[in-house]
Amino acid sequence: MTRETIKSTFQNIQENISNQLELIDGRKFIEDSWRRAGGGGGITRIIQGNVIEKGGVNFSAVEGPLPESMSKLMGLDSCDFFATGVSIVMHPVNPWVPISHMNIRYFETSTGKWWFGGGIDLTPHYFDEEQAILFHSQLKSICDKFNPNYYSKFKNWADDYFYIEHRKETRGIGGIFFDYLNENEVLSKEQLFEFVCEVGNSFAPIYGDLMSKNLNKPYSDRNIMWQQMRRGRYVEFNLVYDRGTKFGLQTDGRIESILMSLPTLARWEYNFVPEKGSLEESTLKALVKGQNWVQ
Amino acid sequence: MTRETIKSTFQNIQENISNQLELIDGRKFIEDSWRRAGGGGGITRIIQGNVIEKGGVNFSAVEGPLPESMSKLMGLDSCDFFATGVSIVMHPVNPWVPISHMNIRYFETSTGKWWFGGGIDLTPHYFDEEQAILFHSQLKSICDKFNPNYYSKFKNWADDYFYIEHRKETRGIGGIFFDYLNENEVLSKEQLFEFVCEVGNSFAPIYGDLMSKNLNKPYSDRNIMWQQMRRGRYVEFNLVYDRGTKFGLQTDGRIESILMSLPTLARWEYNFVPEKGSLEESTLKALVKGQNWVQ
Repeated sequence: MTRETIKSTFQNIQENISNQLELIDGRKFIEDSWRRAGGGGGITRIIQGNVIEKGGVNFSAVEGPLPESMSKLMGLDSCDFFATGVSIVMHPVNPWVPISHMNIRYFETSTGKWWFGGGIDLTPHYFDEEQAILFHSQLKSICDKFNPNYYSKFKNWADDYFYIEHRKETRGIGGIFFDYLNENEVLSKEQLFEFVCEVGNSFAPIYGDLMSKNLNKPYSDRNIMWQQMRRGRYVEFNLVYDRGTKFGLQTDGRIESILMSLPTLARWEYNFVPEKGSLEESTLKALVKGQNWVQ
Repeated sequence: MTRETIKSTFQNIQENISNQLELIDGRKFIEDSWRRAGGGGGITRIIQGNVIEKGGVNFSAVEGPLPESMSKLMGLDSCDFFATGVSIVMHPVNPWVPISHMNIRYFETSTGKWWFGGGIDLTPHYFDEEQAILFHSQLKSICDKFNPNYYSKFKNWADDYFYIEHRKETRGIGGIFFDYLNENEVLSKEQLFEFVCEVGNSFAPIYGDLMSKNLNKPYSDRNIMWQQMRRGRYVEFNLVYDRGTKFGLQTDGRIESILMSLPTLARWEYNFVPEKGSLEESTLKALVKGQNWVQ
């Protein structure tokens, strides 16, 4: 399996996801192609739609000498790298529709190392237990097809990864996160590729269903203010902790494509404490590690 | 000069600044006192006023064992530390009033090291050359009273420090920034303390004047959108680069006091390009290093 196969398959996944989301949203993505000075480039698709206030489906395939800051961080010798991936963030208009993120990626070095990584996670502005269980069940079904240990391992990894340490809050209700899947796995490279593609292809049906279910729910100014505050946390996570964002900023990626993950409007209220017994309060209580959504 | 003298003087500066700003704004600060688990604490004053949409005047005096992550970063042996400072960020309602930040700080270790640091800088939403020149002239006058080299040295330091590397933009029109002023300076410790206090005491008159000059200027929805986008850049700087924010997050400081620097509402528009010949465009052009505001 060549890097060209992975690259063109990932690009098809970008195409399919945007087509499916357009059908639900009713508006079209705009597209920007870009080249990276150090080598490679990408295609950024952005929607400012009826259901999605701001969403991006980004494809990139970049290559060249690995910057020293990155090789140190990754514990690699100085080498050339090739990285391709699809990365998605959706910020909806309606606060009852959750934010969602998906990423699949493949990385290889001129010294013969390669691995796959990726994940999907959900950040509801308002916690909905039924939808959380459904979401995790869908992810478990995908994982179970490939390895009976994957869901539990990757679910815990997501709990740890999507964690806002300084707030002692998870970013949302988690999902799955995985990285460095390489020749040490039980699965072959072909099977790992198939797994990653299945994760990628699952995004549009899973998230599309969540969009359709919630997009017509009425909402108030208070719901919008809370949505903006939750987006503020999303910004904190992405700028302070997110590895993809750091990788993009340190490899001199295209800023507007990297930061398409940031919402249109985010809010910070000093020392906001939700009302006792409110949905805002119960949402905060659900943002903890180690919840078992499915058996 | 004891650390107690520095601490109580800094606390007085916090008091004086908030009193002066209240007179211009017409509303009062609210106050939260907090203790730090590792030792020390602080007083956070927040205003949500008529002129200032969200502003904080923070005083803290913290102490205890220096976290390893910090001692490594600072090139220090493992030791106890004491740090006291006043830190201010003002986000105004009216987009014609600039954002401003001031910080003064004193740091000492149980191994006998000590230094002062601080700075003032201005982030206009709309560039105004006359006000930029006045602002820098005022800072130069303060510096010149203590050392003829300080203004030029600290102005360049601010250019380098308040720089959003991934945007290739300065955060605003700069100001002065200084750190590690210790026994190697020509000035004595007493004189350095006096300098730092003069910087602190200059904030309210300098910024108060900018508030009064601009607070009644009419503004449009477009001005507000641009203000929110400039605030987005402010958030990027503070979460990705700002040392004070990192220090606070890594020393387990009070999150709401550290992140009081973030604005109420910040905006990210995908790939926004200002109109040719607009004030937004000329503002972006002014956000570069190395401008000479005063001779």
